[in-house]
Amino acid sequence: MQYNAVPLQRLIEQFEKMPGIGRKTAQRIAFYILGLPKDEASAISDAINEACEKIHKCALCCNLTEDELCPICKNEKRDHSVICVVEDSQSLIAIEKTKEFGGVYHVLHGAVSPLDGIGPEQLTVKELLARIGGGEIKEIIIATDSDIEGEATAMYLAKLIKPFDIKISRIAFGLPVGTDIQYADEVTLSRAIEGRRSM
Amino acid sequence: MQYNAVPLQRLIEQFEKMPGIGRKTAQRIAFYILGLPKDEASAISDAINEACEKIHKCALCCNLTEDELCPICKNEKRDHSVICVVEDSQSLIAIEKTKEFGGVYHVLHGAVSPLDGIGPEQLTVKELLARIGGGEIKEIIIATDSDIEGEATAMYLAKLIKPFDIKISRIAFGLPVGTDIQYADEVTLSRAIEGRRSM
Repeated sequence: MQYNAVPLQRLIEQFEKMPGIGRKTAQRIAFYILGLPKDEASAISDAINEACEKIHKCALCCNLTEDELCPICKNEKRDHSVICVVEDSQSLIAIEKTKEFGGVYHVLHGAVSPLDGIGPEQLTVKELLARIGGGEIKEIIIATDSDIEGEATAMYLAKLIKPFDIKISRIAFGLPVGTDIQYADEVTLSRAIEGRRSM
Repeated sequence: MQYNAVPLQRLIEQFEKMPGIGRKTAQRIAFYILGLPKDEASAISDAINEACEKIHKCALCCNLTEDELCPICKNEKRDHSVICVVEDSQSLIAIEKTKEFGGVYHVLHGAVSPLDGIGPEQLTVKELLARIGGGEIKEIIIATDSDIEGEATAMYLAKLIKPFDIKISRIAFGLPVGTDIQYADEVTLSRAIEGRRSM
């Protein structure tokens, strides 16, 4: 039996589709929205519409921005000869928060995943090659995830960039800081040994 | 530092306000929406607007509905002389799912909570009294939550309905089915003993 009115059910279903939201939370959110004053409820739909209209890819690095160029690409103090390649804007934000990286980025908007039908042409690989082809780039740091798709993408990009004769590096994988070796999983531990550095 | 573009940040903040959603989930949802095709993204905002426009309180029981009367109040097979009073539509759905109750409902839209500034006038108490005053009601089952606010509301309503000389009952509180007595909390266990039934 259908317990909710149709428009309410439709609203619940929209929230259920979102990542990290189950049926109960979707229901709770829908009732929360219905309980809001009219202007606060429409502020939510306005925010969705506004973000979808105004946010687009940066003309250079493909990061999400509301201007033609994102604040990082516009910043002249950053080192524009070093590009850190990331899968998505969330990864970019995570790296920015470390305040350790002074170069610029390139956002791929995904990773190569043949099973999901995502090949290099769905990503911003072409745009990356155009930037590299423009000269002036000294190093490419590949910071895709450490899962299968991320690794495959890293290897694919490395092969693609090799002919340009610029430095290519991959971020380090190993033990997270503060963990006990005895509790580390085998894959991480072997990556840590493999990637050991002289001291 | 502000890492996200303003419209994106605004979208994240809207989701952060929702119940059960933290900063990380809000961010994940916002990026998910930005990654959707335009029509799917606007389907979300349309669903919000449509629900807020079309859904309102049932003229009789104050349940959320898109028609003048909700499907339960319209249903002639139900016993309209027994009213089950609940705090919200979610409670109503929970009771409906048991398929045990054949009467009708009254949705209070909250519980008396002086600390939050919610008195009886913010609830649909007036509408409930009008229904009772119309005669034909034989029993009121008070099914407000078992927390302080729900208990206070139940007591307040019982006092208010007493002069009408109709049967008033409160749903039973005790051990949830399938639990071990040794693990029950003291309050629940004392309520279970207090509410014991002869067998």
